[in-house]
Amino acid sequence: MPQRTGILLVVSGPSGSGKTTLCRRLADEGEANYSISCTTRAPRPGEVNGLDYHFLSRDEFITKRDGGEFLESAEVHGNLYGTLKSEVTDRLEQGADVVMDLDVQGAAQVRACTDTVIRIAAVDLFVMPPEKEELLTRLSGRGTDSSEVIALRMKNALEEMSHWPNYTYRLLSGSQEEDYSRFKSLVVAERMRISRLPDA
Amino acid sequence: MPQRTGILLVVSGPSGSGKTTLCRRLADEGEANYSISCTTRAPRPGEVNGLDYHFLSRDEFITKRDGGEFLESAEVHGNLYGTLKSEVTDRLEQGADVVMDLDVQGAAQVRACTDTVIRIAAVDLFVMPPEKEELLTRLSGRGTDSSEVIALRMKNALEEMSHWPNYTYRLLSGSQEEDYSRFKSLVVAERMRISRLPDA
Repeated sequence: MPQRTGILLVVSGPSGSGKTTLCRRLADEGEANYSISCTTRAPRPGEVNGLDYHFLSRDEFITKRDGGEFLESAEVHGNLYGTLKSEVTDRLEQGADVVMDLDVQGAAQVRACTDTVIRIAAVDLFVMPPEKEELLTRLSGRGTDSSEVIALRMKNALEEMSHWPNYTYRLLSGSQEEDYSRFKSLVVAERMRISRLPDA
Repeated sequence: MPQRTGILLVVSGPSGSGKTTLCRRLADEGEANYSISCTTRAPRPGEVNGLDYHFLSRDEFITKRDGGEFLESAEVHGNLYGTLKSEVTDRLEQGADVVMDLDVQGAAQVRACTDTVIRIAAVDLFVMPPEKEELLTRLSGRGTDSSEVIALRMKNALEEMSHWPNYTYRLLSGSQEEDYSRFKSLVVAERMRISRLPDA
């Protein structure tokens, strides 16, 4: 029997939601692949082209972007970042599940993608801290940041959080183990979805 | 925060798929309610009206059925059986999850229901034995049935199995513990679905 198409699991959530920990653990346990992003920023010491990032010149990046080759892209602090469609669809077509940790703008770009493989594969999750008080605690970090920095983080987190109704699933963050168990359940359930099976 | 609407989990699968065991265990563990069916057959010794079944006269049943009060109904060996919409929607609106073990015709009736609460709540799963050989073993029971009886069971099971592409999820039955773990994951995931949350 031919393999099902992989799941493209897009995970968003504010800083402090724990989404990156969830995505990394899923990849570390071999349950899903992280896609490798492209960037125009210079490699840092030890970073390997094609492993950590695909390092592109600004011209190369813009040519690919204008050619519609990116699934999502954004400019951050003057550098371009993005994920090539081919990077993701190749894995999905081989039946591998892919996890992407994206902000709300990136997730919206994936949602808007009309590519058939992406549309069949994609599902999105918003990870949300349960209470504002708890989020503030998490964003305060090790207590070394100024109140202005913390207030800005909180403002950004609240703005990000306002986008949750655009998603399919929402995980209210509790303990790390509970969160991961429910995150994993979502992957297990999505693997049973018939629309990604052959001959359905 | 107001509660989410419950999940209406419709489970189908041929005899031998283990679907009834999955549904009963979910209910036994307090994770979901079984809805109480109506029937026109006479109560058996020990059966309690309103607990095992709602026992109705044929006239009462047909009046309710013609009035569109049933979510699904069928005639089996001359007796009418069915589930009242109100029986299910009352629980769903209170945020309780409901599990229904239905054949493919019953599941099709739930899928066709236009009631808003049902449409938001309903999700369906087809439980499928992994291989025909294994199914034959399961259907052969304790070895006391004639080969004709077993052949008929097999024919019915194969007909039932041909309907799996109409469902949202498919569970390939393996060991009982694996099956239940994945079944439970489906419930956990569906509880995170935003379309059943208030203010989404």
